[in-house]
Amino acid sequence: MIDSLRSAARCAKALMRGAGQVMFQPSALTGALFIAGIFWGASSCSMPQVAWGALVGLAASAIGGLIARYPAKDGDDGLWGFNGILVGCALPTFMPDTWAMWAALIFLAMASAWVRQGLNRLFAPFGANSLTFPFVLLTWIALLAAPGLDAFAMPVVDSVIYIPDAALDTSPMALATYWLKGISQVFLINSPITGLLFLIGLLVCSRLAAAWAALASAMALALAILFQADPEAIANGLYGFSPVLTGIALGATLLPPTWRTALWTIAAIAATFLIQAAMNTLMLPWSIPTLTAPFCLATWLFTLPPKNHNNQT
Amino acid sequence: MIDSLRSAARCAKALMRGAGQVMFQPSALTGALFIAGIFWGASSCSMPQVAWGALVGLAASAIGGLIARYPAKDGDDGLWGFNGILVGCALPTFMPDTWAMWAALIFLAMASAWVRQGLNRLFAPFGANSLTFPFVLLTWIALLAAPGLDAFAMPVVDSVIYIPDAALDTSPMALATYWLKGISQVFLINSPITGLLFLIGLLVCSRLAAAWAALASAMALALAILFQADPEAIANGLYGFSPVLTGIALGATLLPPTWRTALWTIAAIAATFLIQAAMNTLMLPWSIPTLTAPFCLATWLFTLPPKNHNNQT
Amino acid sequence: MIDSLRSAARCAKALMRGAGQVMFQPSALTGALFIAGIFWGASSCSMPQVAWGALVGLAASAIGGLIARYPAKDGDDGLWGFNGILVGCALPTFMPDTWAMWAALIFLAMASAWVRQGLNRLFAPFGANSLTFPFVLLTWIALLAAPGLDAFAMPVVDSVIYIPDAALDTSPMALATYWLKGISQVFLINSPITGLLFLIGLLVCSRLAAAWAALASAMALALAILFQADPEAIANGLYGFSPVLTGIALGATLLPPTWRTALWTIAAIAATFLIQAAMNTLMLPWSIPTLTAPFCLATWLFTLPPKNHNNQT
Repeated sequence: MIDSLRSAARCAKALMRGAGQVMFQPSALTGALFIAGIFWGASSCSMPQVAWGALVGLAASAIGGLIARYPAKDGDDGLWGFNGILVGCALPTFMPDTWAMWAALIFLAMASAWVRQGLNRLFAPFGANSLTFPFVLLTWIALLAAPGLDAFAMPVVDSVIYIPDAALDTSPMALATYWLKGISQVFLINSPITGLLFLIGLLVCSRLAAAWAALASAMALALAILFQADPEAIANGLYGFSPVLTGIALGATLLPPTWRTALWTIAAIAATFLIQAAMNTLMLPWSIPTLTAPFCLATWLFTLPPKNHNNQT
Repeated sequence: MIDSLRSAARCAKALMRGAGQVMFQPSALTGALFIAGIFWGASSCSMPQVAWGALVGLAASAIGGLIARYPAKDGDDGLWGFNGILVGCALPTFMPDTWAMWAALIFLAMASAWVRQGLNRLFAPFGANSLTFPFVLLTWIALLAAPGLDAFAMPVVDSVIYIPDAALDTSPMALATYWLKGISQVFLINSPITGLLFLIGLLVCSRLAAAWAALASAMALALAILFQADPEAIANGLYGFSPVLTGIALGATLLPPTWRTALWTIAAIAATFLIQAAMNTLMLPWSIPTLTAPFCLATWLFTLPPKNHNNQT
Repeated sequence: MIDSLRSAARCAKALMRGAGQVMFQPSALTGALFIAGIFWGASSCSMPQVAWGALVGLAASAIGGLIARYPAKDGDDGLWGFNGILVGCALPTFMPDTWAMWAALIFLAMASAWVRQGLNRLFAPFGANSLTFPFVLLTWIALLAAPGLDAFAMPVVDSVIYIPDAALDTSPMALATYWLKGISQVFLINSPITGLLFLIGLLVCSRLAAAWAALASAMALALAILFQADPEAIANGLYGFSPVLTGIALGATLLPPTWRTALWTIAAIAATFLIQAAMNTLMLPWSIPTLTAPFCLATWLFTLPPKNHNNQT
């Protein structure tokens, strides 16, 4: 009895850590706050299936790790789950609620544990890892496959109607909202309250990570306004989520925290902003989102160079 | 005299093995049956240049291997030829019969031996190999280059006319035809008789390979019907050929045959189906075919993860 | 006093070598002739900002290398600068003269030193290096990002108007002009005088490199006429610059000069021509140029295969 309670607790902890690992935090409490943020955001947008998708994706990726018999330590640390929960958020966000979508969600969330293991093997010789790219790759596959498979009931995209840009509201309150949405969009949620819950979730685990998330979202917002990006994208936090992940990855996780690495992280955040703008154009022919690919690409580019800039300090 | 007969026989054997290696069978008899299937299919479609292209591609890739002085053992095993024969089938299938097409065919079939050697070096550290990707890469280059070079006389593609999907004929006889065409399309041939000859060719060399080819084509057909793919693509076997190759590669060639690897192969076949649907959309801006890229991608994704799922059985 | 003069001289030498390294020549004199050619071409096209961009890019990439504390030897040899000068030529060529363009130019030219260091780490295990791909990648990012960021003031591209091809002037004088422009386009300059200055620049450092540049541009021109490529692209040297780089890289730099490697280089030049035509089509959905990507891809494909074709001579 006590044993099965214990393993249920261990299992729940591993799943919640999977949510936390999306922002590199191996903490069940952080993960629980992230999941709370997802439920809040999904229900405030009347899309509860996104929150249920997150849980199903988390569970499916754990099953994927278990049946492939990967090292249990990784599972306990939440490393199987972080791609799965993102697949689980993304598919119900971009696809109608059909049996085919749920079938794809479960299969791809399971596969995300395998693909992560495989891609990590590719990256290992270069001192890098696959980050959230398994999620990006598998979700792209689903989003590209769906229009050709009628079971997904994808709506036909009409030729894009040109809507003149509304001017961006730049009152302090509006800016604060965009800034928090930049953080909530890490899980594809468009809600300032969720962004706040995510920040608190980071704070309970790592003040440095919370600081970099806050700074990166602010910096991306400033760059997007300065370079005059699309106001609607700015207002929905779509320039923020990849820089937030780059900031946490380089500023608070992968590199030792020094002044030099802080400057390096700031350069990487600027690069992430530019890559986000570039990938927006790149994806236009298929009308699919970039997901967190700009974060992956920028973080790889800034972790690959041998670390002369550190070890000679 | 006897010596030159012997080396002619050795040469013919190596070339036929090259045909067999497309489906991983180092057998001249299998290759001969494949070539018979290609000739049957090409003449039944009134496109004899496809069959001659196959032979020219086979010969050119052997010359490529010889002049680059690659290890003779590879040549004897047919490893120079399998990309060359596919280049030789593909170019006359998708391009008009011009001198430029034949020049490109010969050059790229020769180059396929070199590119295979080069890409294998890329894949070696990860326990993988280039599969049919040299063929895919070089044929894509030719198909993308041709519209800009008038010597290829590519017909101008009109804006696609939307034809309402005919309902799919699902009588047992029709389904058997689609199933066999899924196998014949491995060599870009659209003929159930050719599919049958290919199955027999597999059977004479490896019952396991034949079983996986049959199962994979059936499974891809079932998934395409279940997920309601384009009826015309289903009827022409276009969802079948990449899963067939994935099935033979993982089920009967690269992994030891156990129950666990059989389940793993089934998951990889499902992934190949999904990647095929995704790549159909991906190639739309250029109107070029996916070729066997879905097979390559799925097989890499399912061979990269370290084999915990095997070695702990 | 003398010391600071000396370090100014060392610095100027390193910068000029950076220009020379675009065509693999670690010579300040060669670089000075290249820069002279750029200034001539830019002012004859009334685009002086291209020449100033080249200098700014050169300086910014040196700063990038210095602040990252990369080995000084590389900087002295001009290895930080060759991607930077190309970024500096490309951005003012394809973008209006705005503060945003100059900000991107400086940031990306600095980053080119870091990205080169990172990508070289990726390529090192395979005996290859990143060539000019850092320039290609970063310039693509800028060109894709700009249309979505109004600060770049990119002109709206109207739907392409079909202009019937003018017949190509094939008088000897015209052919000589195309041939020299094929060389000048290495730095995105459209001027036969500049092409001549570049050839002289090569000649003062390496007769072999000059010979391969001349031969490669002529060969690409002949292939483009034979395969009937777009006359305007031929007349502006757009089929020439990547083959020129492939010729210098394989014929005069990376491989030992023998008859076998000369034939190998000729095959690589032909492949570069075909890849150039293919990538022209590939980039159509985004209307961005291929830059020197065809050179990079062809040179990688022809350096990756293990060198059996050499070491068994």
